[in-house]
Amino acid sequence: MKKPLVSVVMGSDSDLSQMKHCAEMLEYFGIPFEITFTSAHRTPEKAASYAKNLSKRGIQIVIAGAGGAAHLAGVIASLTVLPVIGVPMKTKSLSGVDSLYSIVQMPKGIPVATVTIGEAGAANAAILAAEILGLKNINIKKKLMLYKKKLTNGVSRKALKLKKVGYKHYQV
Amino acid sequence: MKKPLVSVVMGSDSDLSQMKHCAEMLEYFGIPFEITFTSAHRTPEKAASYAKNLSKRGIQIVIAGAGGAAHLAGVIASLTVLPVIGVPMKTKSLSGVDSLYSIVQMPKGIPVATVTIGEAGAANAAILAAEILGLKNINIKKKLMLYKKKLTNGVSRKALKLKKVGYKHYQV
Amino acid sequence: MKKPLVSVVMGSDSDLSQMKHCAEMLEYFGIPFEITFTSAHRTPEKAASYAKNLSKRGIQIVIAGAGGAAHLAGVIASLTVLPVIGVPMKTKSLSGVDSLYSIVQMPKGIPVATVTIGEAGAANAAILAAEILGLKNINIKKKLMLYKKKLTNGVSRKALKLKKVGYKHYQV
Amino acid sequence: MKKPLVSVVMGSDSDLSQMKHCAEMLEYFGIPFEITFTSAHRTPEKAASYAKNLSKRGIQIVIAGAGGAAHLAGVIASLTVLPVIGVPMKTKSLSGVDSLYSIVQMPKGIPVATVTIGEAGAANAAILAAEILGLKNINIKKKLMLYKKKLTNGVSRKALKLKKVGYKHYQV
Amino acid sequence: MKKPLVSVVMGSDSDLSQMKHCAEMLEYFGIPFEITFTSAHRTPEKAASYAKNLSKRGIQIVIAGAGGAAHLAGVIASLTVLPVIGVPMKTKSLSGVDSLYSIVQMPKGIPVATVTIGEAGAANAAILAAEILGLKNINIKKKLMLYKKKLTNGVSRKALKLKKVGYKHYQV
Amino acid sequence: MKKPLVSVVMGSDSDLSQMKHCAEMLEYFGIPFEITFTSAHRTPEKAASYAKNLSKRGIQIVIAGAGGAAHLAGVIASLTVLPVIGVPMKTKSLSGVDSLYSIVQMPKGIPVATVTIGEAGAANAAILAAEILGLKNINIKKKLMLYKKKLTNGVSRKALKLKKVGYKHYQV
Amino acid sequence: MKKPLVSVVMGSDSDLSQMKHCAEMLEYFGIPFEITFTSAHRTPEKAASYAKNLSKRGIQIVIAGAGGAAHLAGVIASLTVLPVIGVPMKTKSLSGVDSLYSIVQMPKGIPVATVTIGEAGAANAAILAAEILGLKNINIKKKLMLYKKKLTNGVSRKALKLKKVGYKHYQV
Amino acid sequence: MKKPLVSVVMGSDSDLSQMKHCAEMLEYFGIPFEITFTSAHRTPEKAASYAKNLSKRGIQIVIAGAGGAAHLAGVIASLTVLPVIGVPMKTKSLSGVDSLYSIVQMPKGIPVATVTIGEAGAANAAILAAEILGLKNINIKKKLMLYKKKLTNGVSRKALKLKKVGYKHYQV
Repeated sequence: MKKPLVSVVMGSDSDLSQMKHCAEMLEYFGIPFEITFTSAHRTPEKAASYAKNLSKRGIQIVIAGAGGAAHLAGVIASLTVLPVIGVPMKTKSLSGVDSLYSIVQMPKGIPVATVTIGEAGAANAAILAAEILGLKNINIKKKLMLYKKKLTNGVSRKALKLKKVGYKHYQV
Repeated sequence: MKKPLVSVVMGSDSDLSQMKHCAEMLEYFGIPFEITFTSAHRTPEKAASYAKNLSKRGIQIVIAGAGGAAHLAGVIASLTVLPVIGVPMKTKSLSGVDSLYSIVQMPKGIPVATVTIGEAGAANAAILAAEILGLKNINIKKKLMLYKKKLTNGVSRKALKLKKVGYKHYQV
Repeated sequence: MKKPLVSVVMGSDSDLSQMKHCAEMLEYFGIPFEITFTSAHRTPEKAASYAKNLSKRGIQIVIAGAGGAAHLAGVIASLTVLPVIGVPMKTKSLSGVDSLYSIVQMPKGIPVATVTIGEAGAANAAILAAEILGLKNINIKKKLMLYKKKLTNGVSRKALKLKKVGYKHYQV
Repeated sequence: MKKPLVSVVMGSDSDLSQMKHCAEMLEYFGIPFEITFTSAHRTPEKAASYAKNLSKRGIQIVIAGAGGAAHLAGVIASLTVLPVIGVPMKTKSLSGVDSLYSIVQMPKGIPVATVTIGEAGAANAAILAAEILGLKNINIKKKLMLYKKKLTNGVSRKALKLKKVGYKHYQV
Repeated sequence: MKKPLVSVVMGSDSDLSQMKHCAEMLEYFGIPFEITFTSAHRTPEKAASYAKNLSKRGIQIVIAGAGGAAHLAGVIASLTVLPVIGVPMKTKSLSGVDSLYSIVQMPKGIPVATVTIGEAGAANAAILAAEILGLKNINIKKKLMLYKKKLTNGVSRKALKLKKVGYKHYQV
Repeated sequence: MKKPLVSVVMGSDSDLSQMKHCAEMLEYFGIPFEITFTSAHRTPEKAASYAKNLSKRGIQIVIAGAGGAAHLAGVIASLTVLPVIGVPMKTKSLSGVDSLYSIVQMPKGIPVATVTIGEAGAANAAILAAEILGLKNINIKKKLMLYKKKLTNGVSRKALKLKKVGYKHYQV
Repeated sequence: MKKPLVSVVMGSDSDLSQMKHCAEMLEYFGIPFEITFTSAHRTPEKAASYAKNLSKRGIQIVIAGAGGAAHLAGVIASLTVLPVIGVPMKTKSLSGVDSLYSIVQMPKGIPVATVTIGEAGAANAAILAAEILGLKNINIKKKLMLYKKKLTNGVSRKALKLKKVGYKHYQV
Repeated sequence: MKKPLVSVVMGSDSDLSQMKHCAEMLEYFGIPFEITFTSAHRTPEKAASYAKNLSKRGIQIVIAGAGGAAHLAGVIASLTVLPVIGVPMKTKSLSGVDSLYSIVQMPKGIPVATVTIGEAGAANAAILAAEILGLKNINIKKKLMLYKKKLTNGVSRKALKLKKVGYKHYQV
């Protein structure tokens, strides 16, 4: 198994049902990754030492999913100069607006690259990581171009089906 | 000078114009305190060692003011079992809703005692600290009771003035 | 049975499914408490006399859960110098944003220590109470440190499990 | 001077610049009123005895203006069966959304008749009071009909002016 | 059957499941009322003639429930000098915030007495109507005082039950 | 089959359950239309050439449904001088507020005619298209007037039924 | 002077500073228009008769600007089958979110074509009207195409200037 | 002058006062960049060809600032596999919440790396770009580490100053 280039981390195992879409997408692009739980609030010291050692271990990009007062991405970003991607988890009471504001509104100096709330964001974090790695890895870049083409073809194929069966009989 | 019981901390000196209302109120109650800058994002390690040493140094309560993706209170709370009071700073783009959600929506296990957004909250954090310290310090408790009476009298005095001069001539 | 140190109060029995997480957490820390219903709007006089007698009865901390135009915590805070912790209930139409604003945005002079919306907040209110009581009770403080360790270990254990079974087979 | 039928009350003299629009409108309708400060949080007992004595003193309607965690209208409503009109004050950090939610989202059983945020709401509270009093006082009802006509005529007169001078030269 | 004093109106029969709580509460207070559908948008002329004839027909108070861009209460208020109570319906996409803003934010001159979003607001509209009618009808006023007492007793009875069975066995 | 006058387009087949209400309403008015999928993000070039060719193909009005960061309507509007109607899709995390802001807040110069969030908006987009086409097609205009009458009659018929069966037995 | 094709209407002369951008843009496109004040709330009957006579008078499109509980566009739309464009005015307390929700969230059956909040929306309403009129008036359509080109050229010219002077010396 | 690695683009010259903080920060890190105006709505074809040629011209990262219905970042992201960073501009009516939702809520497949609203976000976009480029350029990585140290030292120096002069005399 290859050395991981991306580290996927989340605060709680209740985030896994959303964050698994990130892991699946990384696999799709053939990007070696590690996936673990670490919490800015429940394992602060482990989170800190984890963040400080990322670079040494050859990790290139961190993807952090957290919900509510979602500090994980910011805490990691404060301790590394690697790009950190934050995924705001959909939450029960505020639907993820709390997660979004807690992740995106970082102060000047410590950016977090924030993506869509929830599952779609988890997948998009992986694609964003692929875009970054694709800057120096032509294989990943090619896969991204193929993925884009696949997206395009998917819409076209569905459009054809819609034309054929009509909107009343179209099955999603 | 007495050993500080309360530590007032904020992420940036741009927060001081709001947080000074906290310091003034602590002085009003005669509570010895320290006040400093430490940032969850710009000085993460200092913030962590600061949080871990609070208890040893005899600090009883932490008051943390931060704005935007406001992680300071939560980061400190993760590293101490002292009560942590969070003050959401009023911000330029989102008026402090971002700060509020980032501070109050902590996950189960790591509470932050959140108060009003902005100046009023900074003062209230100090009063809340006085209420906590007042549980074992009868002098502070008495001062709190006097302060409440002063608030009551202030409203009554203003009501009398309003009655006397009428609403058209009342000067705030 | 020991004399209660904490009073848990809520406006309606429809809040109990959320507030029971507070009671359970207080039991976990071995903190004697009382739990009752009293409403700022439906039993205003009882709420007032309740608030005024808290201190005499030896109560140290009040935890008040309310939803919507949630006035209970503020009303109690206006009549006592004990620390008052407010828990914003998740609500049907506005998901608890109404409760949150009604509890946290107290005017200068009368703080309410506000925690997370809903169940997590109910539990956090109890932990915050433990942190306050832990300032003078070394047993509670020790339990808090153990609880933090338990949280940390819980995340680590789950991280190990994730490593072992992989994200595809992990069962929450 | 006539016995007041309406009581206008607000939590703080900082609310007066908004609430004076209420007093002016009551004067316009010739409705005798009293105006005072009383605070749900700073003068809770005075607010309670005030609320309980309203009916005895011949007051028919209460208009309560408050901001932030605005409990005044709800606290009064809990202690009287008179109609209570709540005016949400415009606030510094949340622009009055906090006041609005704290006033309007009352639980089943204790209504508050909530009006527009800010100055316009203060004036509307007075008009709503006039509408209620107009149910048994034909003079007030006639004044209301004249006021409506005046509003209508005002718009028509402005429309004529706009037609005459054109939108480029119209001065508000 | 008595001549109706209150008119309950709503824009659509999909509002009836919420607005029936208004009708039930009016019945509880023995207030004769009529209930009908009329829409500011689908039956504008009927709504207008309805609004203009309310006073002649002896109606004293209008209660209007509407959702989304909820114009019904405002449209009626523009054509009568009777007090108009607006009930913001809970909606599918925006949960009733749209209804609330559309009803409460009326311009200076044309107030709508706005109550809680949804079912609770429907019931509260009826109680507010009772409070207004109670100003000249001592029977309704007495019923309101009994209702308040019933609310108080209800909470007390539940508090006793909670004390007896404990929070773990309490059944709502 | 007639040449389409209206083009109904949406970003994804997951939007079809909402957008079909648009197609049904266009059929109701007898307006020939085409319906297809094209995505501002997944098929950008197809979307662009589609937008640029609309006018040539005789299309008069575009109806675009999209959700989240909903760029489809704006992208089409940037490439045509035909009127573009945008339908904000209801979304999972933010309920369609994200879609609404992304569609309605267009910069000066490039309008999008935005309608209600979700199903109701999809139907309304079709009616708005009918209103526009009705400016030169008297048949469509007549159908609109009949449709309005039908709406009016529908409410009146329901009001009669409510009167007859009473609110307790009314079945929606 | 030509017979007006577009009617620009607003609820209050305080809206004129925003709505004049609509008038200016209509002049730019050479579209004859009338502009007036009429209020859904202060002149409801005039607004209704105005709405009902629009079609007879040869008006093709209505542009209605209103703020707060902004019912004007909806009220007009309920009484005409002409396309109605709604412009949400920026407001003091809620910045126009109240206006936006009150205008855009119309029920199924009565659409309002909603544009951007404030000045930009006022201008966009005029452009949207031009797009609709352009469907049968080739001159207006050509002007729209020129306007689009002008927008494009404006950006290109500014981009050239930026390239020449550099971002540090660029004057807006 | 070196070939640009980063392309900074914004929709309008009114965005430059916020986006210049991005340019300054890129200069600080010695990263060659180009800066230009291109609009998703006013120059859609130029924006598209610009996006499609980025990779060929050796650009590695795009930073796009836009406000309101902010489609620029998404439109570029749809046409390139380079990482796209979106900066939500602070806006007049909705303070940038509209920009934020329009940029961050991208559908699955087309990520945009979103940063803080306004000036701070513009600077953070540049730092994020530096973090990405630092993955293969050790000089940039070192500069990032120095920058972080400078941030840390800045806070420490201010903390010392605060300690020395006291909070009452501290000048920001």
